[in-house]
Amino acid sequence: MNTLKNDRLIRALLRQPVDTTPVWIMRQAGRYLPEYRATRKKAGDFLTLCKTPELACEVTLQPLDRFDLDAAILFSDILTIPDAMGLGLQFKEGDGPSFSNPVRSSSDIAKLAVPDPHDELRYVVDAVALIRRELNGRVPLIGFSGSPWTLATYMVEGGSSKEFSKIKGLLYSDPVALEQLLEIVSASVATYLNAQIEAGAQAVMIFDTWGGTLTPELYRRHSLAPMASIVQKLKRTHDGQTIPVILFSKGANHSLGEMAATGTDAVGLDWTINIRDAKKLVGDRVALQGNLDPTVLYSSPTAIRNEVKKILSDYTEPSGHVFNLGHGIHPGIDPNNVKVLVDCVHEFGSKQ
Amino acid sequence: MNTLKNDRLIRALLRQPVDTTPVWIMRQAGRYLPEYRATRKKAGDFLTLCKTPELACEVTLQPLDRFDLDAAILFSDILTIPDAMGLGLQFKEGDGPSFSNPVRSSSDIAKLAVPDPHDELRYVVDAVALIRRELNGRVPLIGFSGSPWTLATYMVEGGSSKEFSKIKGLLYSDPVALEQLLEIVSASVATYLNAQIEAGAQAVMIFDTWGGTLTPELYRRHSLAPMASIVQKLKRTHDGQTIPVILFSKGANHSLGEMAATGTDAVGLDWTINIRDAKKLVGDRVALQGNLDPTVLYSSPTAIRNEVKKILSDYTEPSGHVFNLGHGIHPGIDPNNVKVLVDCVHEFGSKQ
Repeated sequence: MNTLKNDRLIRALLRQPVDTTPVWIMRQAGRYLPEYRATRKKAGDFLTLCKTPELACEVTLQPLDRFDLDAAILFSDILTIPDAMGLGLQFKEGDGPSFSNPVRSSSDIAKLAVPDPHDELRYVVDAVALIRRELNGRVPLIGFSGSPWTLATYMVEGGSSKEFSKIKGLLYSDPVALEQLLEIVSASVATYLNAQIEAGAQAVMIFDTWGGTLTPELYRRHSLAPMASIVQKLKRTHDGQTIPVILFSKGANHSLGEMAATGTDAVGLDWTINIRDAKKLVGDRVALQGNLDPTVLYSSPTAIRNEVKKILSDYTEPSGHVFNLGHGIHPGIDPNNVKVLVDCVHEFGSKQ
Repeated sequence: MNTLKNDRLIRALLRQPVDTTPVWIMRQAGRYLPEYRATRKKAGDFLTLCKTPELACEVTLQPLDRFDLDAAILFSDILTIPDAMGLGLQFKEGDGPSFSNPVRSSSDIAKLAVPDPHDELRYVVDAVALIRRELNGRVPLIGFSGSPWTLATYMVEGGSSKEFSKIKGLLYSDPVALEQLLEIVSASVATYLNAQIEAGAQAVMIFDTWGGTLTPELYRRHSLAPMASIVQKLKRTHDGQTIPVILFSKGANHSLGEMAATGTDAVGLDWTINIRDAKKLVGDRVALQGNLDPTVLYSSPTAIRNEVKKILSDYTEPSGHVFNLGHGIHPGIDPNNVKVLVDCVHEFGSKQ
């Protein structure tokens, strides 16, 4: 396999010395970029974009041509696993995702099986291999999956939700059924991420968008514990290289210490905690990724630089920090402001 | 003025002995009740319901006839102050609130004035007086207002928002303009709540729905500091009675200690912290209100009772706890489940 020309991300995730703080941006390949919107238009619809490796590769690489980013992240949807399980993922314009066959009962759960990453999810594995080839060692490629709790939420609600009435109703009324669902989804996520690693992903991240909707106790049981079981099952070396793992739960700062104890290499932070306080909670166990409020990018270059510098100075260790937003970039952001952010991180990042 | 027949709420807020834990429910007068939906239909539209004291009184009292609640809360909208400032509040069916004249510039901010609670907001003061008369001492009446930050958010965004692009853009680009806006809104909230107290509100609560969208540092500056200034301006006794104050910021558990230091009597909790941990953070300075996950009400009576009992047993002090949900009750909840909750709190609450 080719050698990495820029290995800052991997080094920071493993808390090794870096020449400056690495930076990438959640949803960096996305609607805020006109070139992304053009490819999306060419694809016709969002799912075709996700399911065509050449197009997924094209949009994955786009932000790297504009900005001095230190990682590429696989362009894909968070709901590929439930789709591969036969739930029938659809995107109606302006409506967000929905499933034609949501999970509604114990018998629905009993019917679910772990999807074969080389069959139903082959388009993802193929995209990873293609992107890795096209990157040619420029920066590392991050693979990803949704967390079991987050995927289960969509599977039971049948799509996006504000109230989480169905999944929470299941959680409180029939926790055993929920555990069964989380178990099959966890096995699927582990298999899926390992297939991405074998295809060339050089780091993997688990996105737990909805863990923060739980009480701390239920978060640890239904969101963190399944993620911890996945961390134990992942191939942590491939082709002679260490594959770092990043866990990110939005809105779960109450459990950062517990996240750090899972064996993950890094923990992602949203912007509702000072990174200095987060560091105290996780100690020397993990690297931290984050955590600029994404809305800072609606302001001026001067304000963006000030806020970036604040976070960099609040993280006082020589390594172990990957700069990122605290959540995905919004579609309305001016790409020029992203350039200001990326360049500022490299200029003022931790040097060794 | 009439004497309170049930003063559990006031006693718990002031951390005095109680015969059992008091309970009320955020949005207890609301769409989950068929009788509310009938009055709303009679009113024609939501704003007419808010602005007609007889109708506001009718829906305020409805949940008390069904459930053994320990407080009434004024039925009103959170956006009455900006409406009274001339922003032109509208509710389009299914769309949520919007303003025809949102605040978009420093010159818009300079034009704002503190509304006279006995003129533009007279319908609220009249509703408070009427409800208080109709309650006839049955339970105390809680008055309320949105927090300055939360109101400013709606005023600048022009309505509901998911991304907070405009208010956050203003915050990061022109913090001085934001401070000016928060100052005039804070003065308005203090005047408004004092008018509610004079009209008969026996406790007041400030709802900060959107404080949790800020970093901890900016929360303290732009959301908590304005609330603290209001707490200092409130009439804390009226007609010989102490008027307790409750502050509630959703998603701001990082600053519970700072909230307790404002001089408020009580702090509301969402469900993302164990009440035992919250108690450690606030110490003996304040009472706590909360904090059941509202979605527990989608489950079974047995599950509801278990979850209620857990919170009651996690709060180990003899007084200083007002049971509530961690956020407003959802419109889809079965009223029978609310009865299960209320009765369970009284059965297993702290007895002295």
